[in-house]
Amino acid sequence: MKRTIYLKKKSLEEAKEIVSSEIVNLIHLGTERIPVIRSLGRVIAEPLFAKISSPPFHCAAMDGIAVKAENTYGVTEESPKSLLIDEEAFFVNTGNPIPEGMDAVIMIEDVHLIDSKRTEIRNAAYPWQHIRAIGEDMIATEMVFPENHKITAYDLGALLASGYQEIQVKKKPRALIIPTGSELLEPEQTNLNRANSRSATIRPGIIESNSYILSGLILEDGGEPIRHPIVKDDPIKIKEALLSNYAGVDLILIIAGSSAGSEDFTRSIIEESGEVFVHGVSIMPGKPTLIGKFKDRPMIGIPGYPVSAIIAYEEMVRPIFYQSLHLTKTERPRIKVIPTRKIPSKLGTEEFLRVKVGNVGKRFFATPLPRGSGVITSLTKADGMIRIPALSEGVDENEATEVELLRPLEEILHTVVMVGSHDLSLDILANLLGRFYPPIYFSSQPVGSLGGILAIKNGICHMAGLHLLDPETGEYNFPYIRSYLRGVDLKVIHLVYREQGLIVQKKNPKKIRGLEDLLRKDFTFINRQKGSGTRILLDHMLKTLSLEPAQIHGYENEEYTHMALASAIASGRADAGLGILPAAQAMDLDFIPIAKERYDLVIPSIYFKDEKIEKVMETIRSDEFKKMVFQMGGYDVSRTGEELNFQF
Amino acid sequence: MKRTIYLKKKSLEEAKEIVSSEIVNLIHLGTERIPVIRSLGRVIAEPLFAKISSPPFHCAAMDGIAVKAENTYGVTEESPKSLLIDEEAFFVNTGNPIPEGMDAVIMIEDVHLIDSKRTEIRNAAYPWQHIRAIGEDMIATEMVFPENHKITAYDLGALLASGYQEIQVKKKPRALIIPTGSELLEPEQTNLNRANSRSATIRPGIIESNSYILSGLILEDGGEPIRHPIVKDDPIKIKEALLSNYAGVDLILIIAGSSAGSEDFTRSIIEESGEVFVHGVSIMPGKPTLIGKFKDRPMIGIPGYPVSAIIAYEEMVRPIFYQSLHLTKTERPRIKVIPTRKIPSKLGTEEFLRVKVGNVGKRFFATPLPRGSGVITSLTKADGMIRIPALSEGVDENEATEVELLRPLEEILHTVVMVGSHDLSLDILANLLGRFYPPIYFSSQPVGSLGGILAIKNGICHMAGLHLLDPETGEYNFPYIRSYLRGVDLKVIHLVYREQGLIVQKKNPKKIRGLEDLLRKDFTFINRQKGSGTRILLDHMLKTLSLEPAQIHGYENEEYTHMALASAIASGRADAGLGILPAAQAMDLDFIPIAKERYDLVIPSIYFKDEKIEKVMETIRSDEFKKMVFQMGGYDVSRTGEELNFQF
Repeated sequence: MKRTIYLKKKSLEEAKEIVSSEIVNLIHLGTERIPVIRSLGRVIAEPLFAKISSPPFHCAAMDGIAVKAENTYGVTEESPKSLLIDEEAFFVNTGNPIPEGMDAVIMIEDVHLIDSKRTEIRNAAYPWQHIRAIGEDMIATEMVFPENHKITAYDLGALLASGYQEIQVKKKPRALIIPTGSELLEPEQTNLNRANSRSATIRPGIIESNSYILSGLILEDGGEPIRHPIVKDDPIKIKEALLSNYAGVDLILIIAGSSAGSEDFTRSIIEESGEVFVHGVSIMPGKPTLIGKFKDRPMIGIPGYPVSAIIAYEEMVRPIFYQSLHLTKTERPRIKVIPTRKIPSKLGTEEFLRVKVGNVGKRFFATPLPRGSGVITSLTKADGMIRIPALSEGVDENEATEVELLRPLEEILHTVVMVGSHDLSLDILANLLGRFYPPIYFSSQPVGSLGGILAIKNGICHMAGLHLLDPETGEYNFPYIRSYLRGVDLKVIHLVYREQGLIVQKKNPKKIRGLEDLLRKDFTFINRQKGSGTRILLDHMLKTLSLEPAQIHGYENEEYTHMALASAIASGRADAGLGILPAAQAMDLDFIPIAKERYDLVIPSIYFKDEKIEKVMETIRSDEFKKMVFQMGGYDVSRTGEELNFQF
Repeated sequence: MKRTIYLKKKSLEEAKEIVSSEIVNLIHLGTERIPVIRSLGRVIAEPLFAKISSPPFHCAAMDGIAVKAENTYGVTEESPKSLLIDEEAFFVNTGNPIPEGMDAVIMIEDVHLIDSKRTEIRNAAYPWQHIRAIGEDMIATEMVFPENHKITAYDLGALLASGYQEIQVKKKPRALIIPTGSELLEPEQTNLNRANSRSATIRPGIIESNSYILSGLILEDGGEPIRHPIVKDDPIKIKEALLSNYAGVDLILIIAGSSAGSEDFTRSIIEESGEVFVHGVSIMPGKPTLIGKFKDRPMIGIPGYPVSAIIAYEEMVRPIFYQSLHLTKTERPRIKVIPTRKIPSKLGTEEFLRVKVGNVGKRFFATPLPRGSGVITSLTKADGMIRIPALSEGVDENEATEVELLRPLEEILHTVVMVGSHDLSLDILANLLGRFYPPIYFSSQPVGSLGGILAIKNGICHMAGLHLLDPETGEYNFPYIRSYLRGVDLKVIHLVYREQGLIVQKKNPKKIRGLEDLLRKDFTFINRQKGSGTRILLDHMLKTLSLEPAQIHGYENEEYTHMALASAIASGRADAGLGILPAAQAMDLDFIPIAKERYDLVIPSIYFKDEKIEKVMETIRSDEFKKMVFQMGGYDVSRTGEELNFQF
């Protein structure tokens, strides 16, 4: 069994330096002639000098009559003068050439017709009045744009006006993308179209999507992506794909196969028919990146996990496009954020941490998203990226740190930040809020009900969602707000009542009837995390029934959302867990109702002055919201949107 | 003769409010189904819920063997265990499904083959070790994206992985663009292709380019531009164009014809077959904007000058695209700049002033570009835009003011700022600098030699270009530097010697032989502006020859660049002027040599530590630069790039 070990892992800086020196020099872009009107975003290949002046002749800058200024000297309101039309005065509209011999324009407002042959003027004109002289904008032969200039929409005007209909531009860098992996499926190879959307199954494989992500990024960076079909983990097939395609492209990207696994062949192929410059970069995600050349063509081995692939692309491949096109890369905007928790990071590795960024009050807070490099949603949901340098062990809670924004700052400023327990009605809220009141966005960070209360206390969110049963009084939410948030001026808005119950396998094969059955030895339970409302409800009911948690097999296994819990049951990892009906329905599981609980939103009063929060309220109180939540099943919306009569 | 007068001119704010309320509501975008892999940049029409989980099954997170964790308990280095391959241990690669009954992966590095049937492990595995659980990234039925979400490259990955191959997106807003104007030519109607590039002539018309600028902007804003051919200033033809096309589009843009001129028919057409909401907006450029509807279709009358057209589009049309697609407009980055001169502005009108922005030392300076709305290069050359509010009379020199950046800040930071006299070799320098040392840019602001000296004194540029003759000593540049820049630690770098002479009409029809002929009554002179080196040279030589400026016809007419001067002569506006050979050659004029002058660059010593200035020096000293300048003719490059021995 062949196996590769990373040799001399490089820092990101070293790897980028090698890209700049070794890789970019291998790229020799040709040029091509294209029509100006199709040249938006292209890069000019040679300096362009104006072929003609603009305007190309003296022309009227206003509608009016063209006259000879000398002919008007001494004219006033009191001593007007009449001019012969088409001899001494010529009607011109803006942009018309000035007739031979004329050197001024009198605007139409000051022109008084006497009859069809004569017009009267009441003011003198000075020479060149209201005339745009030839070359006012551009003079023939002056440089309009230097080479390597990227054409904007404005530039199309300057190019056409200076006499260009076609121009020579740099060819787009062509990048061949070869996705490799025996486990991969082309999107159309799945059988999803036949499956019903509620319980779709899939052939045992992973849908190949990295090549399409990279294609999108390459398009945005001015390149031309050429996607090769999936190639199996077979060195002969990979080499064949390279040999039949490398000659026609400027850059080769091989996705996956550059780690240290038994089926990772990229390195040996490149060593055999080219050169490996770098194998392994000290970044996370993105470590298994390979930089080299196949024959005379630059080649980057891109890691197989999507987040790793994107980081490797953005850090090491994007500069290739910019440098070979001679363009300046625009940096992402950066702002200072305060992490909502301590973020430890591995020493010696530069980490790219994806975060949600919330603007609450005057400050910006960053909450880390999952760090797994297989979690593409950690990028699609991210508002920003924090780079933790190789020599840092991480970022402390409350230590202001810099974040690169992935979304426009305006969107972040327009985003309502909800922290707390997860509920599916929040997705519906987010969707309707965006539909009814653009551009207002809703960000929901699932950390459980107690997490939400703490977030309010720490001032890092606009609202918290909770369903916390007080075991002493049997009352929901109020006792917790009273003990944790005393002194905070807040309102409690009721969102929904929802059914909690045991989610069990389809058709309930283990014949579970209620919580008493949790003690049975023949099955595995799956729990929600400590601090979540569902967990407190479970513990309360177990106590009421005098059931001992330690005797429940799987009690210690925790999931953070209802859907993750349902998914664990659907996948057979567990037999039952406490959760909500919509989660059971969504995964096509059975549901045994146990309790109806109250889910409320806690909102500091100060935010009600904020238009965003007002719009959230209007959305929650809309018929559309209530209707859509009700239709999911398991919800009671009879009091949805009411402000509850809460007092400390 | 029909003529329209603006009624109730609106403020920009009022006009935008009317766009938001009246215009956007008229747009009803449909939806269409497209493949995910072609959906980059499109806007999702309905909330998308994951069809499948991702990963869709428990899968290996590493290459290795899948085992049952229970089966490995108690295993250590000292007491290893052998497992039967394909019964107790299954080889898996990253992404492979975990075989039924297995619940952990041991990584390949820790696997030791005994023979083809058995493998040895030396460590225990814990349950779910190195396994990505089903739904780790997305769980079936959870919301992947809300409606109105604009798809990024990252999002393609989330969409494909959650089981989508096609999605429903909003149709692109279709915008019909009708350029109007009898003076307009289609780009291909010019006879430029037959003309030689040195003296290209053009049919008497203005090349229509606004529609292509607007098309580019619409593409960038997510719309679909549909350009109509040019329509003459004829209300019947314009109405025909509207009637045959309005039904198939979401928005109509009519370019020109909405001012108050005699040939401006847009308003009456719209009044007849629709409604005019706004005619005239208090902005400059952009005043003659018209907002209304034709039948039931929203319609904007766009002013005919290119800068006006762009401002009207960006302020009043762009929001229509963003609002109808429910997207948030990204604001341009803003920085504080110091104007290099007082900028007066008309009270009651919001002005959009285009400026060059230079980063010199630690400060950013803004120099206004020409304000004419016909000058498209005032936008293509602009680094930023200063909005001067309606209630302001302008901005004072040295009063820090906000500018919206039109170029990335990185480019501005990488730009060398030259202020001073104009020379064509600077275009060659700019071009080669960008070719040899990207991303370094060169910005040249032509204000004359004395303007350059003042700019150095005020610290607003990196270098000044001058060719100033001292009439007392006959010496170039040094005397001026001594008297104006005493105390500044600086270096003088010689750029070129260049020939100054009289530029005259082709074949010299008036038989001018030298400066003495300037006094002749039968022709008109054109001068350079006061303070320019050429002007000082002229005045010096006139004095030497005892010629009286007041006796020269046209002496008071000034142009600011050599090319503008040559253009005035080529167009017949003047018969002769003092200028340089390349300008005469470029305009196909004759040239009578008068003097050879020295053109130097003055650079404060402090900037030589700056890499950008170093690269400018290397470019000036390159063979390529000298060769290209020499080939233009009229230049002596024998000492180009030398540091001159200057002392105060």
